[in-house]
Amino acid sequence: MSIPTDPVHPTTLYVCVTCRAEGDTSEVRAGRRLHDALAAELGGDPAVRIVPVECLSACRRPCAASLTAPNKWTYVYGDLPAESAAPVLVETARLYADAPDGLIPWKLRADAIKKGSVARVPPFALPGHTA
Amino acid sequence: MSIPTDPVHPTTLYVCVTCRAEGDTSEVRAGRRLHDALAAELGGDPAVRIVPVECLSACRRPCAASLTAPNKWTYVYGDLPAESAAPVLVETARLYADAPDGLIPWKLRADAIKKGSVARVPPFALPGHTA
Repeated sequence: MSIPTDPVHPTTLYVCVTCRAEGDTSEVRAGRRLHDALAAELGGDPAVRIVPVECLSACRRPCAASLTAPNKWTYVYGDLPAESAAPVLVETARLYADAPDGLIPWKLRADAIKKGSVARVPPFALPGHTA
Repeated sequence: MSIPTDPVHPTTLYVCVTCRAEGDTSEVRAGRRLHDALAAELGGDPAVRIVPVECLSACRRPCAASLTAPNKWTYVYGDLPAESAAPVLVETARLYADAPDGLIPWKLRADAIKKGSVARVPPFALPGHTA
């Protein structure tokens, strides 16, 4: 059994486009604005695929995004300001793409990424772990 | 490119064994107690593989656990009481195992699972979504 993956875009950046910032009544939701800012910041970088998602279920901590790739840890980040988080998140996505297991050295992590951690999930076939 | 998966245990239940319950000074951490209760509750059920993890980075909401499987949405749950969450979480794991995309119908979800949602992440190759 195997999972089909995307060899062109091994790193995927999911962005919740349904997140609303607290007190924000803008017609375009904060999550969508963050998505669009990220797409612009990435500028078509082939190393990272950006994918809009309707709800990452991190609704207590908008805006939210997730980084995942085959055989790497998956990360979910929250508390991301729609208007300013894009450069930091793109830098993080590139560091993640370069990390064989997805683990970015602590000292290289931006403050917003350290503080915004919502969850992480191991690669599916985590080696060395059995019940 | 493909990811090796485990055909015997397509559903994996990750349990954070480093979670500490608030104010709990027990030698055995709450996360470890939850893991052991889950293993007992599962009773060797071959449909679900239980895997201890050192930190799911959901430290604000102990105890934490995650359900994942190839081609399914991944879920992270928090606020799980070590002493009482095992039956509900095992029931949830079995519903998840039965759901083709991992999406458990809302009306079948236990309250602790609805309220304990920390995040969800799409299957890696989410169909119908491109940049």
